[in-house]
Order: sequence, then structure tokens, then C-alpha cells
Amino acid sequence: MHLYDDERLDYLPGEDIKIIQSPSVFNFSLDAVLLGRFAWLPIQKGEILDLCTGNAVIPLLMSRRTKGNITGVEIQERIYHMGVRSIEENRLEERIRLIHGDLKDMPNVLGYHKFDVVTCNPPYFQTPNTSEINPNKHLAIARHEIMCTLEDVVRVSSQLVKQGGKIAFVHRPGRLLDIVTLMRTYKVEPKRLQLVYPKAGKEANMLLIEGIKDGNPDLKVLPPLTVYQDNNEYTEEMRAILYGT
Amino acid sequence: MHLYDDERLDYLPGEDIKIIQSPSVFNFSLDAVLLGRFAWLPIQKGEILDLCTGNAVIPLLMSRRTKGNITGVEIQERIYHMGVRSIEENRLEERIRLIHGDLKDMPNVLGYHKFDVVTCNPPYFQTPNTSEINPNKHLAIARHEIMCTLEDVVRVSSQLVKQGGKIAFVHRPGRLLDIVTLMRTYKVEPKRLQLVYPKAGKEANMLLIEGIKDGNPDLKVLPPLTVYQDNNEYTEEMRAILYGT
Repeated sequence: MHLYDDERLDYLPGEDIKIIQSPSVFNFSLDAVLLGRFAWLPIQKGEILDLCTGNAVIPLLMSRRTKGNITGVEIQERIYHMGVRSIEENRLEERIRLIHGDLKDMPNVLGYHKFDVVTCNPPYFQTPNTSEINPNKHLAIARHEIMCTLEDVVRVSSQLVKQGGKIAFVHRPGRLLDIVTLMRTYKVEPKRLQLVYPKAGKEANMLLIEGIKDGNPDLKVLPPLTVYQDNNEYTEEMRAILYGT
Repeated sequence: MHLYDDERLDYLPGEDIKIIQSPSVFNFSLDAVLLGRFAWLPIQKGEILDLCTGNAVIPLLMSRRTKGNITGVEIQERIYHMGVRSIEENRLEERIRLIHGDLKDMPNVLGYHKFDVVTCNPPYFQTPNTSEINPNKHLAIARHEIMCTLEDVVRVSSQLVKQGGKIAFVHRPGRLLDIVTLMRTYKVEPKRLQLVYPKAGKEANMLLIEGIKDGNPDLKVLPPLTVYQDNNEYTEEMRAILYGT
């Protein structure tokens, strides 16, 4: 397989899965890895969809936890191609398909209410000033709500998931209220919330949330997840999640 | 001072403050103690209001952290009298006043937008079946939304607090979404959220949340608070909160 420009072939943490990354185009983040581990998945069969899939990091991770069919959608063609080659490199073409397109078109392309699970690690940052947007277009689109807003992500996820199906997101705690408000607006009832803290004694810097389409209100707040020890090594619980050790 | 029936005189944890309790009428909870420690308070002066104040546990605790005036409101006369006698026992009559009344009447009684801080440890449980309500009327009213709903508490708090003033609640994680939705409905923007976990590895069973009237959206999720060690003793952080040691 050919690697372009500054691309390199890395391993996903704890898995024998290779993935193409590029510092100037797209690197997967810890956020995506944690979402790939957090989301509920059917084990034997089912239809699973990952929006804003980037280099397919979440589909690749999820392919180890489910035998179902996984679809990823990515709007940036350059990054979509990184994902396609990563899937080929791992010989997962029959389990994971990628679509190059806009998630807002997906209900018409894929059909309404066809998926058991929808996941998304969306762009985190709202309508920034031009001066604050990353001048690298690839990174800017992945990080800022340029091509889609949080409301687009929640609305489309709700349109794509089956009744009773699950939707899982990773985002920043500062947007927790927007997320839960939008989820309820689009009939996705939040059921599991986990806060992620960089270190003991610090404020949370990430949240994982899962809701059920047309579910009943009953939110569980899972045990907190702390990423680093004071010595900047991963905590034991984090190593267990990443490496299973 | 006279103690009635099964009343007893206890100390508040970590303070030289006495409080009247009664297993059959009203015991203060850890929830109230944590809210009394969590809420922001002006140090030198200000008007502070505690709704659903019970035996005045939260005003008594807050009196050690502020020189401001503290008002408590309790609807149950029997419990109100426990609070009045507790305040007298501690000679805090000039700092804390209690009102026997319905919080829903307080905007008319006390005036709109007069308080710098409003706190409330409200009844936790929604519209239960008759069979699930505690047959002890005192305990039932303190625990169930019989005399006031969560929406009453949030609406009235918003009517009583000044613009830019703070409102702090303690509640159960299962109602997090209702609380934040109601806060936003009544123009109180959630700003600080802390989840409380009974033990490491368990789901949260309590939340502390503070909002600002007419504030800007920017929620911080504080470090998690774990109450007990595996050996059922308080954790170090909990002892620091309760006893300052």
C-alpha cells in the first residue's frame, strides 16, 4: 500500500489493527478511541454507522467487538481515502464500508431508521472567528462546526437510528447541556453518561454519552474515568481500556 | 432547651454547631451537608436563601462560611420548629431567620430578585404511587414531590435570585436532564456540576449543580467526589470536606 506525503502506518492501541495517519491531514484522537470502546454494540449481527468517521478509527476499533456491518461516513475526500486504504490494509472491506459524503444527505442515501447503533465524534468547536480557525483546512473541518453543527449531528443520527436503537457521542463537557437538550429535542433519551478527567483533581475535559431513540428517561452516570496518573503515565483503568491489561 | 419525643441534639460534622434531629420527623442527610459545602457564598455580606431547609442544616453550615444574612424556608411546621430551636441553641438568631411557609409563596413574601444565592435540597422522588410513599407524613413530604415539584423549586429560585446571582441544588443523577432543562427554561445557566459516587467503580448517586441567573453557557464539570473507601470508611477527600482534616 502506498503512503502519501507525511502519512504513516500506525497500530491502534491494544489491537492488531493498522491505520493510516498524517499530522497534516488527520490523526485519530483518544476521544475517538474511547468512543469506540464506550458505545454499546450488538455482538453477532446488526447495522452500525459512524458519522464524521475520519480515517475510520472508530469502525476499525468496533470491528473487533461486533460481527455486524459497519458503515462510516466522511465528508473530506482526502481523509476518506486514508480510511479506505486502512480498511483494505486490515482486509476488513467485507465488514466495513466507507461513504464519501455529507452526513446531512445520509437519511436519503442510506434510508431512515435502518441502524441499530450510530456513533459520532463530531467537530467540537462552535462558529469560531476566522482568526481562530486552523489555517489547515483538513484539521479545521475536523475540529470546527464548519460543515456540520452539533444539531445536524444529533438530528441526522436520530433520523438514521431505529426506534430503540442506540446513539453514542463523545464531546466536551462545556457542550453537555447542548447535547442533552438536542438529544431530547430529537427524541433520543440520554441513558449513559461518563465523564473523563485528564488527572485526579482536575475538571473533566471529555464526556461520553449514549442515548436510546424513543427511550424512557433514566440517566446513569458511570464511574469517572481518569486518563493520566500524576507522573503522566496512563492510569490502570485507562490501560485496561486501551490495552486490556 | 426542650427536646420533644425522639429528638436528639447532634453536632454537624466538622463544626461546633448543634442541630436537633429526629428519626421519626427529620434527619439531615449527607446530601444537604455536601450542598452546604458546595454552594458559592459571599464572604462578607449578602442575602442567602435556603428553600426546603428542613431543620436548617444548610443555613447552619453556611453560617460558618459567610457573614451574610441567611433565610431558610420550611413548609412543615414541626420541622420548622426543630430548625428554630437549633438556631437558638447556637445563638445564631441574628444571622439566620427561618420562615414557616410554602416556597411557592416566597416571591410575594420576600420580593422578586432580592437574593445573591439560593440553595435547595428538594424532595427527590417524583409523583409516586400511594403504596410507595412513606407512610410517615413528615418523611414523605421531605422526600417526595408532594408539596412542590422540581419545576416549582427551579422557577421560584429563579424568581428569588438577583440577576447574576447563584443557585445551587443537590439531586439525583437520574434527574440531571430535568434539572438542566428546567434551569435553562427559567434563565439559570448551569455553570458548575459535580458528580458524587458512593465508591470507586460505582455509578454516581448524587449531583451538585450551580447556575447563574442570566449567565452565559460554560459548564465546568468538577473533579468527581467519591464518598467511601472499599472498607466503608470515608475517603480522604470526603474527610477533608466534612472535617477539614
